[in-house]
Amino acid sequence: MNEIKIPCGISNRHIHVSKEDLESLFGKGYSLSPKKDLSQTGQFACEETVKLVTPKGQIENVRILGPERNSTQVEISVTDSFTLGIRAPYRESGDTSGTPGVLIVGPAGFKYIPEGVIIPLRHIHMDPQTAVKLEVQDKEIVSVETEGPRSVIFNNVMIRIRGDFMLDFHIDTDEANAAGLNNSSFVRILR
Amino acid sequence: MNEIKIPCGISNRHIHVSKEDLESLFGKGYSLSPKKDLSQTGQFACEETVKLVTPKGQIENVRILGPERNSTQVEISVTDSFTLGIRAPYRESGDTSGTPGVLIVGPAGFKYIPEGVIIPLRHIHMDPQTAVKLEVQDKEIVSVETEGPRSVIFNNVMIRIRGDFMLDFHIDTDEANAAGLNNSSFVRILR
Repeated sequence: MNEIKIPCGISNRHIHVSKEDLESLFGKGYSLSPKKDLSQTGQFACEETVKLVTPKGQIENVRILGPERNSTQVEISVTDSFTLGIRAPYRESGDTSGTPGVLIVGPAGFKYIPEGVIIPLRHIHMDPQTAVKLEVQDKEIVSVETEGPRSVIFNNVMIRIRGDFMLDFHIDTDEANAAGLNNSSFVRILR
Repeated sequence: MNEIKIPCGISNRHIHVSKEDLESLFGKGYSLSPKKDLSQTGQFACEETVKLVTPKGQIENVRILGPERNSTQVEISVTDSFTLGIRAPYRESGDTSGTPGVLIVGPAGFKYIPEGVIIPLRHIHMDPQTAVKLEVQDKEIVSVETEGPRSVIFNNVMIRIRGDFMLDFHIDTDEANAAGLNNSSFVRILR
């Protein structure tokens, strides 16, 4: 087991929005209000939230993460997929082809996206120097072990390496709660 | 890896009630109405549901599992513990000493239990014959592997052996959703 401990970053459900969709939801010329920086450089949680609506359910207070992106993407957990009654697939961020759509409701309007709802695949961000220390390659699939009474080993964890990435094990709330992890927890890559 | 596949039984939040507490919630002389048999012999989901209330939150439609027990016990997930704003510990069923209390609301009255809210530890039920085949002992701690894109290995899984137990890997909704499991899924014990 590698001795470099990797901090956990737990993602609650959230949405990335395009400039065009942001204006549909919040009004012409609207720009996002950063509330809190995220672990990855340049990424931030916004003051703004929206509501997700399907024929079978809805979820309120879904936070927008900035900055704006080229296309709108909604990231939920399996638990959320039951609440909304949609079959969202496990995907990497950005890979939204053929995924379910959802009605997004903001304070100034709504926007139906025909696709874009995913359950993100867990992954580890890191910079190239850390990757050398951990002896992993970009896109490599590893297993990650957690500690404590609910210790689990997460298989199928993808490594993502980029110069501006901070070391972070990204999981969703289902995965964190199943393993008893919080944002102060650490995990290790199994070799 | 052992080749005997073990079916998953996913427990949503639920409550076991004493006869006395049942009468406080549903009225004098009330008896439970079985709705659906559970995998373990003699256990059943009831038509009856209650509401759990704390100063910080509430959860409605919490199903009662029968038959009645000597003492009332509430079993929730980590996700639920955030909703209710209480720090429930991981415990085996029946081990409720020093656990948080909760206000239980029924159609005919309410009952505050000063303790009894737990997050159940995952475990595998089986009969002695199956235990011989799987080469495990009562109370042994094993690891269990799941399949699929969200494959995980659950460590710290306790074996429970009794003559009337059916083979079943009992996990909660957080654990099931984190691993992408449903009630048709199977797992294997890692050796």
